[in-house]
Parts: sequence; C-alpha cells; structure tokens
Amino acid sequence: MRSIADHESRDALDVLRHSAAHLLAAAVTQLYPGAKYAIGPPVENGFYYDFDLDRTLTEADLQPIEDRMRQIASEDPAYERVETRREEAIETFRNLGQDYKVELLEKDITDDVVPLYRTGDFVDLCRGPHVHSAGELKAFKLLRVAGAYWRANEKNRQLQRVYGTAWPTPQDLDEYLQLLGQAEQRDHKRLGRELKLFLLDERTGTGLPIWLPAGTTIRRELERWIVDEELARGYSHVITPHLAKLDLYRQTGHWELYHDSMFPPIEFEDGLELELRPMNCPHHMLVYQSELRSYRDLPLRVAEIGRNYRYEKSGELMGLVRVRAFDLNDAHIFCTPQQLHGEIVGALELSRYFMRTLGVEDYYYRLSVRDRSSGKWIGSDDEWDTAERALREALVGIGVPDDQVVVGEGEAAFYGPKIDFQVRDAMRREFTNNTVQVDFNLPQRLGLEYVAEDGTRKRPVMVHRGAFGSIERMTAYLIEQYSGAFPTWLSPVQVVVVPIKTEHVEYARRVEERLRKARLRVRVDDRQERMQRKLVDAHEERVPYIAVVGGREAEAGQVSVTARGDARSVEDLDGFAERLALEVAERRR
Amino acid sequence: MRSIADHESRDALDVLRHSAAHLLAAAVTQLYPGAKYAIGPPVENGFYYDFDLDRTLTEADLQPIEDRMRQIASEDPAYERVETRREEAIETFRNLGQDYKVELLEKDITDDVVPLYRTGDFVDLCRGPHVHSAGELKAFKLLRVAGAYWRANEKNRQLQRVYGTAWPTPQDLDEYLQLLGQAEQRDHKRLGRELKLFLLDERTGTGLPIWLPAGTTIRRELERWIVDEELARGYSHVITPHLAKLDLYRQTGHWELYHDSMFPPIEFEDGLELELRPMNCPHHMLVYQSELRSYRDLPLRVAEIGRNYRYEKSGELMGLVRVRAFDLNDAHIFCTPQQLHGEIVGALELSRYFMRTLGVEDYYYRLSVRDRSSGKWIGSDDEWDTAERALREALVGIGVPDDQVVVGEGEAAFYGPKIDFQVRDAMRREFTNNTVQVDFNLPQRLGLEYVAEDGTRKRPVMVHRGAFGSIERMTAYLIEQYSGAFPTWLSPVQVVVVPIKTEHVEYARRVEERLRKARLRVRVDDRQERMQRKLVDAHEERVPYIAVVGGREAEAGQVSVTARGDARSVEDLDGFAERLALEVAERRR
Repeated sequence: MRSIADHESRDALDVLRHSAAHLLAAAVTQLYPGAKYAIGPPVENGFYYDFDLDRTLTEADLQPIEDRMRQIASEDPAYERVETRREEAIETFRNLGQDYKVELLEKDITDDVVPLYRTGDFVDLCRGPHVHSAGELKAFKLLRVAGAYWRANEKNRQLQRVYGTAWPTPQDLDEYLQLLGQAEQRDHKRLGRELKLFLLDERTGTGLPIWLPAGTTIRRELERWIVDEELARGYSHVITPHLAKLDLYRQTGHWELYHDSMFPPIEFEDGLELELRPMNCPHHMLVYQSELRSYRDLPLRVAEIGRNYRYEKSGELMGLVRVRAFDLNDAHIFCTPQQLHGEIVGALELSRYFMRTLGVEDYYYRLSVRDRSSGKWIGSDDEWDTAERALREALVGIGVPDDQVVVGEGEAAFYGPKIDFQVRDAMRREFTNNTVQVDFNLPQRLGLEYVAEDGTRKRPVMVHRGAFGSIERMTAYLIEQYSGAFPTWLSPVQVVVVPIKTEHVEYARRVEERLRKARLRVRVDDRQERMQRKLVDAHEERVPYIAVVGGREAEAGQVSVTARGDARSVEDLDGFAERLALEVAERRR
Repeated sequence: MRSIADHESRDALDVLRHSAAHLLAAAVTQLYPGAKYAIGPPVENGFYYDFDLDRTLTEADLQPIEDRMRQIASEDPAYERVETRREEAIETFRNLGQDYKVELLEKDITDDVVPLYRTGDFVDLCRGPHVHSAGELKAFKLLRVAGAYWRANEKNRQLQRVYGTAWPTPQDLDEYLQLLGQAEQRDHKRLGRELKLFLLDERTGTGLPIWLPAGTTIRRELERWIVDEELARGYSHVITPHLAKLDLYRQTGHWELYHDSMFPPIEFEDGLELELRPMNCPHHMLVYQSELRSYRDLPLRVAEIGRNYRYEKSGELMGLVRVRAFDLNDAHIFCTPQQLHGEIVGALELSRYFMRTLGVEDYYYRLSVRDRSSGKWIGSDDEWDTAERALREALVGIGVPDDQVVVGEGEAAFYGPKIDFQVRDAMRREFTNNTVQVDFNLPQRLGLEYVAEDGTRKRPVMVHRGAFGSIERMTAYLIEQYSGAFPTWLSPVQVVVVPIKTEHVEYARRVEERLRKARLRVRVDDRQERMQRKLVDAHEERVPYIAVVGGREAEAGQVSVTARGDARSVEDLDGFAERLALEVAERRR
C-alpha cells in the first residue's frame, strides 16, 4: 500500500500544472501590462489563474496567450525560490501593483518569512514546489475563460479565470484533448435532454431534477437490482421518513457540524422544527433501537435507498452530479467487534460486485486512518486499532493489489477510519463513490446497546456503508461512460421492431407480444415514415436491438436483427427472445 | 343510480341514531339534575352527546344511563316537533338552565321561528327528523366517555362526550359489537407494533412512521405490483422531486386554497422558498410540458408513487391512517375529449383490479356532479356535460350495478366532476380511497397545450386518478382486514421451516435453499427451543406456512406443512415450492 505522502504521480502532475499556471500569469502580465493576478492553483486535470484585467478576455485571446507561454518556455527560465521577509514581499508586490498578493500577505499570512517564486520577470507568492525550469513544460493548452469572484465571494470583485491543462508528454495531452472533444457528446446533461432521461425545470427549483419515463426505467432497474441483491446478502431494507425533528440532529451532532450544508428547518406554528435529513444514519439508528437487541440479532444490516437533502450553492449545482436532493444506496451495519472484519469484507465485495456489473473499472481505494500523533479522536486506541486493522485486512482479504490502495495517514474523520472507492469518470474526473466507514461517535451519542452473551450491555460497532453511491451520481456516470448507449438491461427501450411495409405491422405486433412475454421493453415503430428514417431514429435513441420484419421474416417466424456496432443476424423469434432475456437476466454489458 | 338526496338507508340510520342521542340526553338530565347538554349528532356507526356536568363520568356510569334510556324508551314517548318563536325558545332553555342552547340560539341562529323537539320532559333545539316515538329504539348501547371542547375550541370549556351506537335490530347491534370486540386485536397500530411492521418514534416527529423490515417487504410487494401493472397498462412512470418552488403552488392555486394543510415553506437565505408538495399534479404537468405534445402523444398517462406532505394537526394523527407524509399511487392522464370515456373506463378497471386482488369488497361509488343551478364552476357547460357523461357512462360501461352508485348533485369540486370509491374498512369506517376526477382548472392555469390534427393548439383534458390509494392508508386497511394474517404474496415471511431436532437442521437448510430458489421468503427456526414454542411463535407471527421437517421428511425429500387454518399435509419439497410460487405469482388471497 502507498501512503498519500508518496503518491508521486499525482504530486508530479500537480507540480507540472502549478508551474504552468505561473507560466500563464507570466504571459498574461507581459501581454496585458497592468494585469493583476490573484490565485492560480493546479486543479484536477489542469490548472487556472484568476486575473483582474481592464479588458474582457474571450476564447480568441487564448491562442495568443498560449503562444506567449510557449515563447517564454522556449527561453527556459528557472523557477527560483526566494525566501523573503514579509514586509519586503509586500513592498515588492505593491511596487508591481499586485494588490491581490498584497492583500493576501497583509490579511492571510502571519509568517515573518514567506517564499516567493521567480520565473524570469514574473514573481509570485507561492509555497511551491515547481519544475526546475519552464522548458520542462512541453504539453499544455489553454481551454476556456470563466468568471470567478475574488475569494469565491460574490460580494467581491469578479475576476477572469483562464483554465488550462498540462501533461507530461504531448501524447498524454492529445489523449486528454480527445476525451474533452467527446465531452460535449458524452455530457450527461445533454444526453439526458436528448434521450429524455431527466428534466431540469426552474419551476421545481434548481438541483431538483425530474426523472422522465426513460430515466425512471433506468432507475427502477438499478434500484430493484440493488434491493434484491442486498436482501439476498442478508440486509434488512427499511423505509424511513425524509424528515426528523431538528432535535435529533442536534443530538447526533449533525446540526452543529453540518448545518451550513443542511436545508433550513421547517418551522411550524406550534414550535415544531422539522429538518429534511442530510443523511440516513440517525433514522437507521432508530430502527436499531426499535427493540432491545441481543448479540443474537447481530450483525444487523439496515439498508435503504434513502432520500437525502443537502444545501448546495446554486452556482455549484450541475445536472445529476450536484443536486439538492438525491437517493443514496445506504446501509448501516451494527455488529460486535469480532464481526467487524467479516462485515467490511462483505461490504467491499458487494461494492465490487455492483461496480463490476456496471462496468466501473477505473478506481482505486483510499484508506483513511488517524494521525497517531494527534489526540483529537473519539473512541479508544483499542477500538481504532481494531477498526483500522479490520479495514486493512479486509482489503488484503479480498485480494486488492497494493498499488490500488492509497493510505491517508491522518485523513480519517474524527469519528472513525474508512475506505473510499475513488472513481474516475469518462472525463477522468475523480469522485468518491462507495465508502465503508467505522463510526465510534454516533452509537455513543444515541446510546446504542446490545445484550452480550454474558448478559451485560455493550455498545455495538457501527459501519456506514455505501455500496453503489447515489442513484443520481451513478446514473450521470453511466450516461457518460456509455455515451447513452446503455447495456441492454438498463436500456429504456431494448428492442424496436421495424415493419418493412404496412402489411408487416401485424407480424411486428406478434413479435412485440412475444418479446413482452420475455419481459423485454419493446416498441413497434409503425409510423408512416421510410424505413431508413426509423433505423436512424432507433440508432439515435441508442436502442440496443432493432428487429426488422418483412414478408420473409413473417413467413419463417424470424427477425432480422441489427445490434449496436452493426452486428446483423437473422434469428428465430423464440431464440432471439430467449437470448435477450438471458442477456438481461445476467446484466451483461 | 341513486341520488344522495334519497339514500334512505344511511338517512334512516342517521335518524335512528340522532333520536338515540336525544334519548341519551333525556336520561342524563333525569339522572343528573343540573346537567347541561350541548350538541348531540349522529356519527358514523353511532351517535354522541356532549354534557357539562359537575361530576366526571366514568365507564361505570354508562350502564345506569343506558338503563334509564331503556326505561324512558319503554314508556314510548313521542318525538314531537314544535315550531317555536326564537325568543320563546331562548326563554324556554334559559328557564331550564341550558346555557349552551341559549348561546346557540343567540349567536348562531337568526331565524324567527326555530324547531324544538320534545320527548317527554326533554326538549332540544333540533332540525330533525326523528323517529315517531322512543319505542322504536330497540337496539342501542353506550360505548365510552371522552373529553371534548365546546365548539371544538380548546379555549372553551371542556365537556364530557358520551358515545353510543344504535341499530335497527338487536342482531345488527350484536354484529357490530362483535366487530368492536375484535377492534383492539385488529387495530393496525397494535399489530404494526407486534408484527414489527412499522414504528412511531417521537424523535422523527409525529405522523412520520418508520417502516421496519417486515412492513417494508409488504410495501415493496405492493409497490412493484402497482408499477408493473401500470406499465403494462400503458402508464409512463416518472420520479419527480418532493419539493417545488412555492411560486409553482401560487400559480396552480394550491397555496391559496390549501395552505392551511400544507407544510410551511422552507426559506433560504437567498430568498428561495421551497415547498414540500401537498400533491403530485403540478410536477406531472411539468412532465407533460417537457416537450411540445401532439395529438399523437395522447393519451399521456403520467404515473408515480409520489410522496406527499400534509400538515395534519397533531391531535388528528393516527398510525398509518392519518400521517403527515404519505406515498400516493397517483397518475395524471392528459387526453383529448374524445379519449376521455376510454381513459375513465381504464382507470376504473385498474382500480377494481387492485381492489379485487387485495380483497377490498365493501365499497360503493360516489359520483359527484355539479349543481346546475349554481354558476361557480370553471370550464364550459360543454366540457362539464362531456365529463359528467363520460363518468356516468364509464360506470355503466364497466357494469357497475345502480345500487352501488350514489350521485351527489352539487358535490363536485369547482374544477371538475369525479367518481370516488367509498371503502368501508374492517371496523365499518368509511373512507375515500380510489378516485377519478376531471380537472378543468389546472390545464388552464399552467397553459397546457397539444398540437391537434388540424395543426391548431388545443387544451388537453386532465384526469387525476388514484387507483390504489395511499400506500400508508391501504396498508393500514390490509392489516386490519386480515388481522395481520396477510395473503401469502404479501406476508413478510412466507414459510418458517421447523426442524424437529438439531440433527434435522441440515435438511431444514436444504428446504430453505429450495424455497429461496422459488423466490419465497423463508426462515429456518433453528433456535434452541422446544418445537411447540416454535410453532406458537410462527403462528403469532401470522406466517402462512410452517414446514416441519424430521428424519422421515429428510429421507423422503418431503415437508410436513401446516397452513393457516390448520390445514395439514405432507408434500414433496419440489411440489410444495411450486405450489407456493404459483400462489404468490397469482397473488391469491
């Protein structure tokens, strides 16, 4: 296992991109004298820099800036670190008219000595590290311009943010730009609209998507699969209200810690305060407490596809990825310390089964453990040791190769260690999807107990476990991953039957009926359109199978099948129905 | 079809019960001189009267009062109507010390002449009608005492309410009392607790039940069945957010009309007001408007099991029957006027299919039409005529006998006529469950349109349709209807396998596995308990089948089956599995 401290690859990329950001600022200040530069960090897959400029930048300005960056790079100036006294640094930036740096130095930094980085004429306030010299930057590209507020506060001045990407080699860059080229076509918001999967309507409020019939079909397939699989694996599914008294979240500590991202409470005339829940844990703990539990009841695995509400700023909402209400595949496992290892293994295996079936392959495991030198933890040393060991051994137990695990020392939350599945989507954006987390805090806060074999009352271990992620997030992922061409079992329409002429509609209906009996989702396209039009439409709808039927097919009881990828075959109707039913039952990709 | 104006049976019962209420007040004033009587109406299945008394009545007082009622009845005094001048009536009640009647006459009644009813010494302010004489009251019983505020206002004085029931014959009374005797055992709150179906926990807030694993299983079976059946019948299922901007409900008129029973809005810092929806209609209309609709798209049947929020007073909340959040089987059909009849028939047939399968048999249809003499209606005469005719003809069309329909002239809402299924539960309490309602208001308010065959824009007809009712209400009904002994397909556990001795556990596991493969919900009871204990426990859990297995069964590959109602049989394991799978697939009762 690797520790986050030596995950060189990501760090090296960050250094490269951070250096490219400096290069960008150097170019902009050369091209636009008087330009003020604010901050310019590396970000996922690239970098940006925020500028305060007299003129408004457009896409057309990017090429000249990029050219200038290349020109500077060709001169290969060094990235020189200069430890500077704070007052001197302020003086330097004041002379340069760089007000934002002056403000940062005056308001945010208290160190007596601060690091500056110089690259030719350009100087920046920066901790580094950087590449040795600009010549190392061989593969970068500026991508777009956007507005951004200074310090992300809309009461401040609006700056112009220039985004770029940088990679170790031109090949890497090309590959990424190719991906970006597909981004527009793969974009789940666009496909969601085109394929009529979901709808964003201002009248419901932003971040509250409406699932249209086709999208609802996908959700239904996913949700039933999840629930059935969890039931088969010994989970107890429950349905709990999406609200609770605010007091419950005061007791659990959620209100204190997270109220900024919670919805404002609903206040009734009689003083009642109800809160739309930010997470399902407290409700599942009430299920646990619905009767006196004994060691014989454990492990108790309480599961739900539960609706959660989070207050995301409207500027941060995006399609199905960032929403204000979402349905989480969630479970809370209550067990004894002895059962912990087995429960973690079970949760990881379920996660891997879900991901494998869906075709989620690009992910790594992040194991967050506590910083032993710090003391800000809930729970005893013994409990932490048991939990961390259980998590580590579970990863080994299911045969995860070391290079797929990143260990974050000191990255655990105060209430327990965890494993996250860090998934990269079709656009190489990383997000946390599945998670297995031990919690020492909540059982204590709500006083969970069980009667142990010796008759004493003990506190169960609690594991938060998301094996699928949120339905919204994962659907967005799948839309982009498959560019809307879902595996058959998830396709809203699985077969379109196209009669060659009007006289073949009758046989097309028989085909429809036969496929329906095999529980397939099928549609006869009996519009008064030319056959070519129908084939194109079915193709654009990403329907996995098109069954063309004419006189010959009717006579022989067959269908002429076009699959995606243009595979064609003539098949017996029964055989076709059975083959598809099997493909669906096995959830093949 | 009968009109509500001549629904004699209910009226006759009301007259009988109203007369019994007078008899009760007569008895109380004789027994407790100085007793003041407030109001005493007939109610469902009985009557009550509110008294202001110096002493507190207990259950022990009911028998003496009832005896006195019988004594008065045996003297057979007439119910004599006396038209009296208002001032004179006030004088009469003032002399009797009947302050509540005086207040009613002074504050609520403006008529110059008011009707009084005299029964022996007793006199009441009352519109009647009544029975001719008290001797007609042959079958009544007092049931309980409760507190009640004068004019239902808690700021007023608390009175003592005596409840009773009255029926035409002693046989009717006995039958009803028998039902009442079972009430406690059938009560869904009690069974919900005992069978661990759902949980009411103050920490979530009243009226927000938590569905425990067993109850969730029932819901899941019901919900999947509903969705699959609706999909097969051409409905488009959607999933829409449970919130919308308050403005949407201002536009639809819901906020203006219903804000008292809506949740208070959630107010965000940036001025956003979100409202937990009281109904699904507006969201389904947004689905309709998600693209330009043409006549070819119609009928469009938008369906959802949608969560709704209603602010019910905390005193009115009860188990699953009256809650603050519930899931409604809801659909909105958008169609042309020509399609209306067929759509109503379809909706009624679906309702009847659901009710028949669930064993809901005691209901009648209430057809609410407009009062033609009034003008307070939205929509044209033509539209109303079409809609009312479509509703009437649909009832005829599906072969509903006339005596199962009650027509309510002038009972329609301002926005359209409707048919309600008036269902009586196991305790003979009537409630509105399914409904088919035409709406002329909302399509106009949100400007719904479709492109007609001639290219013009037209307004679709909108039908609100609930074919199942709310999941919560119907589950409460089913719990009481079946006293918790659900049909096999709905039973949380369908088979308990009981090994005779420890050595038979292995075969019991094989039985379990075989039944699981047939998708049955099965549990092996391998506790260290005596067999008799296990049988009793399974019986109390209302498990439909108990499979006892010992050496003989293991050897022969059989199971010894005890079904509810004590039917016993020895069956081949495979045959048993197949028989049960079929029973479940056919949703037999």
